Parts: sequence; structure tokens; C-alpha cells
Amino acid sequence: MNKNKEPVRPEARLPKGLFDTPANEIRATERMLGTIREVFESYGFEPLDTPSIEYTDALGKFLPDQDRPNEGVFSFQDDDEQWLSLRYDLTAPLARYVAANYTSLPKPFRRYQSGPVWRNEKPGPGRFRQFTQFDADTVGAGSVAADAELCMLAADTLEALGVPRGQYVISVGNRKALDGIMDAYNVPPGQRLTTMRAIDKLDRLGVDGVRQLLGKGRKDESGDFTKGAELSPDQIRGVLEYLQTRVVDDDHAALTKQLSLIEKSPIGVAGLHELEEMTKYFDAAGFERNQVRILPTVVRGLEYYTGPVFEAELTAPITDERGQPIRLGSVVSGGRYDGLVERFTGEKVPATGISIGVSRLLYGLQLLGQYKESATPGPVVVLVLDRDRIADCQRMAQELRRAGIRAEMYLGESGMKAQMKYADRRGSPCVVIQGGDEKAKGEVQVKDLILGATLTSIKDRDDYLKQQAEAQFPVPEGKLVEAVQGVLSRHKA
Amino acid sequence: MNKNKEPVRPEARLPKGLFDTPANEIRATERMLGTIREVFESYGFEPLDTPSIEYTDALGKFLPDQDRPNEGVFSFQDDDEQWLSLRYDLTAPLARYVAANYTSLPKPFRRYQSGPVWRNEKPGPGRFRQFTQFDADTVGAGSVAADAELCMLAADTLEALGVPRGQYVISVGNRKALDGIMDAYNVPPGQRLTTMRAIDKLDRLGVDGVRQLLGKGRKDESGDFTKGAELSPDQIRGVLEYLQTRVVDDDHAALTKQLSLIEKSPIGVAGLHELEEMTKYFDAAGFERNQVRILPTVVRGLEYYTGPVFEAELTAPITDERGQPIRLGSVVSGGRYDGLVERFTGEKVPATGISIGVSRLLYGLQLLGQYKESATPGPVVVLVLDRDRIADCQRMAQELRRAGIRAEMYLGESGMKAQMKYADRRGSPCVVIQGGDEKAKGEVQVKDLILGATLTSIKDRDDYLKQQAEAQFPVPEGKLVEAVQGVLSRHKA
Repeated sequence: MNKNKEPVRPEARLPKGLFDTPANEIRATERMLGTIREVFESYGFEPLDTPSIEYTDALGKFLPDQDRPNEGVFSFQDDDEQWLSLRYDLTAPLARYVAANYTSLPKPFRRYQSGPVWRNEKPGPGRFRQFTQFDADTVGAGSVAADAELCMLAADTLEALGVPRGQYVISVGNRKALDGIMDAYNVPPGQRLTTMRAIDKLDRLGVDGVRQLLGKGRKDESGDFTKGAELSPDQIRGVLEYLQTRVVDDDHAALTKQLSLIEKSPIGVAGLHELEEMTKYFDAAGFERNQVRILPTVVRGLEYYTGPVFEAELTAPITDERGQPIRLGSVVSGGRYDGLVERFTGEKVPATGISIGVSRLLYGLQLLGQYKESATPGPVVVLVLDRDRIADCQRMAQELRRAGIRAEMYLGESGMKAQMKYADRRGSPCVVIQGGDEKAKGEVQVKDLILGATLTSIKDRDDYLKQQAEAQFPVPEGKLVEAVQGVLSRHKA
Repeated sequence: MNKNKEPVRPEARLPKGLFDTPANEIRATERMLGTIREVFESYGFEPLDTPSIEYTDALGKFLPDQDRPNEGVFSFQDDDEQWLSLRYDLTAPLARYVAANYTSLPKPFRRYQSGPVWRNEKPGPGRFRQFTQFDADTVGAGSVAADAELCMLAADTLEALGVPRGQYVISVGNRKALDGIMDAYNVPPGQRLTTMRAIDKLDRLGVDGVRQLLGKGRKDESGDFTKGAELSPDQIRGVLEYLQTRVVDDDHAALTKQLSLIEKSPIGVAGLHELEEMTKYFDAAGFERNQVRILPTVVRGLEYYTGPVFEAELTAPITDERGQPIRLGSVVSGGRYDGLVERFTGEKVPATGISIGVSRLLYGLQLLGQYKESATPGPVVVLVLDRDRIADCQRMAQELRRAGIRAEMYLGESGMKAQMKYADRRGSPCVVIQGGDEKAKGEVQVKDLILGATLTSIKDRDDYLKQQAEAQFPVPEGKLVEAVQGVLSRHKA
């Protein structure tokens, strides 16, 4: 079929894991980001933008293997052969920025940043190769007062976004305390990562599931087997006892119990003291246990955390569009990472931060009934019945816009019926029509599409005629703006 | 020096042509983009976002040469060996989107999009490898009413951004008219690109410069020689006569002259008729010749334009920070491109659009005295004099934030003097201090840093004492918010 002279046409398609974003989602996201920005600013954070491309080594990835240059990140070589990568988060570029500008920054340095990040991973449901993060970090503050403040920031942000108190919770753990448990029960280094992975699953799998994962392993409902941490029965009993020390609404009592269990581990004791200190700050600033709580099972995946770790979840029962319950996962997460800047400078610079997964949070808010932007009104459409009179139509559209009304002239070549269909597709509240007859009389027809759509359901003839007259009516040219404003105000909620 | 056990530290640096964006520029950009968005929405355009990464062939670049995979664009291979690229503009992704979704879109389709684009080119002054564009396009409208509307949109946008009428101008040309000149004077295909490049330079080099570029070539002040189009003296005379037909404030008269010069070129005549039609729309909608004008020298670089082309310039004399005059170039540009969607579908889909160079426009606006965000007030800083009383300090900061005041607690480890310096660096209007003495009395000190800074210049002792008392004063704990609000309202412009 492909004759010699016929050009090869590329297929209009996107690479896997990448998506276009439609208008309503963009509008909802913009509005949500605006609110987040306001709360972050109120805490004294300042915006920073960094470019999407960084040197691969500055992002903390080693020089990519020539055979697999894109392991986890998108990488490519610059003209001078140096490897570049698209940033995979906003924390690594922050560390590079701080290391490069350390002496000139106010310290502690508080910054927020929002933007896309890229992961060269296998995409799946809810896993994309490009997504947006919104981060706040405090660099140069070693006190857990900085960590506590970020948890408070997360809570205030969720409430500003319309999540009622009691429908979210920030859970706080500590990597030092986790090390403490594993010290106290003599878990060898080689089994620690699997042990932490098992602990992380308490919420989802319950005590029995975690018991299996701490031991030989666990077969899930689909029959897949996950190899366990192979701890001894004593170790398993100890770890589970620790995890179950939580006392509802009394973090202090729980921390006292935990302390008694790992008192022989100095690092563990230090971690628990940090958590105790954080609860004091929460209390003093008026945050309650249904907003921020201590939870020994918070692990967080990233290996660079060195102290407190935190995550925020929406706790209201959430169902998807088909009524199925959804585990949304955490919408905000973060923690203390004291090693990132040191990579560049050799000097320890304490740092802590949180990151919001923007589309996941928006999805959660929408399932809670917030940020549904479907009601964005379309433009008033000025129809074009006579192509010789486009200039008149453009003038009317401009007149409406100058009066602050969203308006456009129909720019296609189709007839009246297609133009009406177009106005419907655009969600137009009304259209403006001026045929030759109207022009001769110095008049314009205004047609209310929202009222017009209800006409077919009217049974009574007089009613129908009355409403029909309201739905479409002539006005003198000079009264166009006024008439359209009248129609728009009919439909303001 | 580098002992075996010492890790290799990456240097904290950015690749050439890429830059971090500081807080004030981000804030100014956000504000500017918000205004642009409002005007674009008022014209009925809808937002769309597309991912940063596309298939290389879908962007209209051929498969990159293995030796030079990054010619002009940043490219890399996906797991399945297909070539991917970072988008180099927002128009190519739009064409891909329209081709993929054509049947389901309202037609004509109006969309706006804003976001970063990447060019793998040699960076230079004002030339970056990542920059932001803000585009509006109308797809599926063949009438030049769509082009005229985009020029009107550009003018309305610049005025909404605070550029007074008379300090900007939108110039409109037509690629068909340019083809018409070259047809009329028998310029052979091989010399047309150089001829257009020469025409493009009339504004900058004047008639003599263009005469040289249309002939053998031109040596510039630095001694560099640019080879010319090598037209014959007759051809040069003809082209220059055409270019000088412009009549100030009377596009109609100019177009009539131009028509007489190229009347034997059907394509040229068609192009001039399109321009004539556009002036009617400008007139009808109330746009004047000092806002939008017809200019035969508008060429625009991109080869895909097929009809009207337009560009907006700031015409006020602009000087840089050192008083040197600056040629800023065009801040908005665009035109009609009827071939882009056809690449995918084989079907002609008329389209036209404009693109705003966001940082260049912001720079221009700032040189005109707009969008200078240096006055963004810093947060109120609650100092920490006694590390045992952090909780109290955090409570005060939270109290201020809950009252809508931007506030933070000092999170570092330094003493009073460094904390005051920190507050200065942050641009804080005032600090809040509560030492042991104040605590015992149930009081807080509020220190007005703006008033405080003026104290040294006061000569009179009584005046000094009075002002000093106003600049730093104790209040009961319960009156903290009120007192800080009082200080903030002192300094509201």
C-alpha cells in the first residue's frame, strides 16, 4: 500500500506511563496548588525552582551503566559526554542547590518547590513516569522542632484544602527507634531491610500477616509468595510486642512502654526521646491526637531517612466511582535526612522535609467531594450566520469580553445547527445570534441554553410559551451586554 | 590527598544553559501567568497539559542519528529502543494531541498551554536550554478571523499586564505575500531563504543593511561577513520598493500599493487579501493602528508557517540596569501553520497560534517598572532565647499564623545576635521575643525591625526615646496577635 512517494506518517501516540491532562483537572490542580502555596508561605517557606535536568552524579545516582543508562531515571549524555538526568524528586536538586549556595543562604533555609519529576520505571495503576510533587524542606535545623513543624504544616494544609478534622491523620515514626528495636532483639544487618518492610505492612496486613513476613514468609490471596525476614520466634514475639504498644490517644503512655522494651539500645532511646519531644510541640501548638499521632510502624521507603519519618493519610472511608473501597495510601510523606548535603561538601547539614503527591491528593480530595471543577462555565458563543458579517460578530464578542464576560466568536465554517452543537459541547450558558433580519432592525437574539434545555419537559402550553420567550429573546444592539449579564445571573448558584 | 577510604564527592553544579530561579522571580512569574491565563480564558481558550516527553517522531524530528542523538532536542531511548525526546515547543505536542483526539474534540478547538520546553543548543546571553512558553492556538479554523483574534488576544494580554497603549505593537505579515514578492521578482527557490532572512532584518539594520544582504553580503561592525542572497540589482530594487510601501497609520493605502507591485502573483494577492480582511476585524473590534499594524517585513523564523505571521514588541525605549538601551526582540510571536496535524493523519487541518516567551516578557515588564516583587514581606520571626521553651515559641508562631500572619519560629541553634541577623535576611517586618523575665511577667517583647532601622538617623534625644519605645515594646501574652497586627499596619504602603 505504501507507495514510494507517500510519506511515512508517525502515529499520534504517547509513550507508556505518560498522559495528557484535561482542562478540568488542570483547573482543579491550579486551585489546589494555590491553597497549598498559601499555607506553606504562611509558615515562612520561600519558593525555589530548579531546572528539570541535572548532572546524574549530582542527583546521587552513580554514572549509569552503558548497557542500562536509564535504570530508574531518564538519562542522556551532554555534548561533552557528561551524563545528565531528569530529576526523579525535588530533594536531590535541593541538596545540590544548598551545597552550591550554602554560604549565601539564610540559615535555617526554608524552601518550597512544586514541579514535575520523572521516573523511568514500569508504569502501573496510579504509577506514572511523570508526576508532580509539592515539597517543603528546612535545611540547617537539627532540632526535631523542625520535624514537628512540618507535621503541623501538613495538618494545616489538609484542613485548608477542605479535609475536615478527623478525616485525616499524620503518623510519626522514627528510624532511630526502628533501629533500636532491631538492636534490642539482635536482628542481624542482613535481615533488617526485610524486617522493616514487614513492619511497614502492619496497617494493611494485620498482626498475623506481619508475623508471617517476620518469619518464613507469606502467601497472599493470589498465591504469590513473599519471602520473610526469617527472624526467630523470640525475635518475632519481641518485635510484635513493640508494635502493639500503641495506646489510642495517649502517645506518652505508648512511648513509655516502648522505652521499657528497647532501653538497652542507646540509638533507640534517642529516637523515642525525639518522638516524646515532638509530642510536646504538637500539644503546645494546639494539635490533637486525631490530627498528629505517634505510630511505631511508620517506616517510609527511602533509605536516606535518618530520624523522624511521617506520613499523612485520609482516614475517611473512600470509595471509587463504582463504590469500591479504595486504599489511597499516603498523600503527604517525609522525614529527616541528615546526609544529603554532606554528599557534596563532606560537612553534615541537618535537613528535614515533606512531599505532597499532587495528583494522588487531588484524587483523594475529589473522592471526598472537593475540587470538582466540572461547573466551570463555558464561554458565551457569538454565532456566525453570514460569513460577510464576521467583523460585526467579532465586535460583539469583544464587547462582551470588555465587560468581563467570557466570550468567543464561532470560528468554524459550519452552519447554524453545528454551531449550536458546538456551543453545547463548550458548556456555553448562552449564544448570541444576529441574522440579516435582526441586523436590519438593529437587534440581536440572545438564547439561554440552560433554560432552553428544560423546555422539552414542560407540559402546559402557556407555561411553555412563557418560558420559551424567556429562553430566547431579541434585544437592541446597544443592550447586548446587559441582556447577556441578565442571562448569566439567572444561573449563578 | 584522596585516601582510599575517602568517597569521591560530586561537585554541586548545574549543566550549562540551565538555571535555578529565585523566590522573587517565581512570585513575579506566577502573578504574570495568572493574568495571562485570565485573558486567554476570557477569549474562550481552555487549558491543556501534555507530558514533557514525547516520541521523537511524533515531535516531527526524524530518528536521531546514532552519532548525534541530541541534535537540537534532548533525546534518549526507551526500554523498547524507541526514541523519546523532551518537547522543544508546545505546538508539536498539540498537533499530536489533536491528531490522536480529533473526533472527540469540539471544533474549532481552542486551547492554551504553559510549561517548560527544552532545546539542546549552545546556550548564550538570553538563550537557555530550558525555558517557559505560554501558548494559545485555534485548530480547525481556516478563516483569518482566527488569526486576527490571536493578534487581538496578544494586545489585550499586554494591556492587562500593564503595558500602556502606545508602548507595544503587534505587527502582522503574511508568508503568502512574501512568496508573492519573490514570485513577482523571479527569485529562484535556492535564494528564497536568504532573501527572507534579509527582509527580516529591515527594522534592525535599515535599508542599506538589507540592500547589502539582498546582494553580495554584509560585513558587520565586528568585521564578521554575512553572505547575501545574491539577487540582481533589479530584484533588489523591487524588493526594497515593496518593503518601503508602509504608510504610517494607513494599512489600507500600503496594501493597495503592495497589491499593485505583486499583482501577477496569485499567491501574493491571496496573502494581501488576507491581511486586508484582518484589518477589517481589527477596526470592527476597536483595535487601532498603534496596537496592531500590517508590516511587510514580518517573517518569523520557523519554516512551518503558511499564512499570516505576527509578533509583538515592546516599543517603549528600554534600558537595562546600567542604562544601556536594549533590543528585547519580540515578546509574543505566532502565525498560521496548516500542515502540522496533516503530518499524522494526511488530512489538512488549519491551525494558528501565538506563543509568549515567559521570561523575556517578564524581563521586559520589569524594565518597564512592572512586576517587581522585591517588596514581598518576610515572615514575623519568633526568636528562641531558651531552648527549653521551644514549645512556647512554636505556640506563639502558630497563634500568629492562625490569625493570618506569615510567621515562623527560629529553628537554628544560634544566639540572639545571629537570630536578629537571620530575621533581617528574611526581610521580617518584626520579631517576637520572650526571655525568662518576660515569661515570668506573662509578657512578650515585639520589635519593629523597619522602624528600628531608622533609629540611628535620629538626632534629637527625646525623639529617639519616643521612637525607640515604639520600635520595641512589651505586651501581655494575650495581646500578641493584636500588637503584631499593629506593627504590620504601620508599614502597609
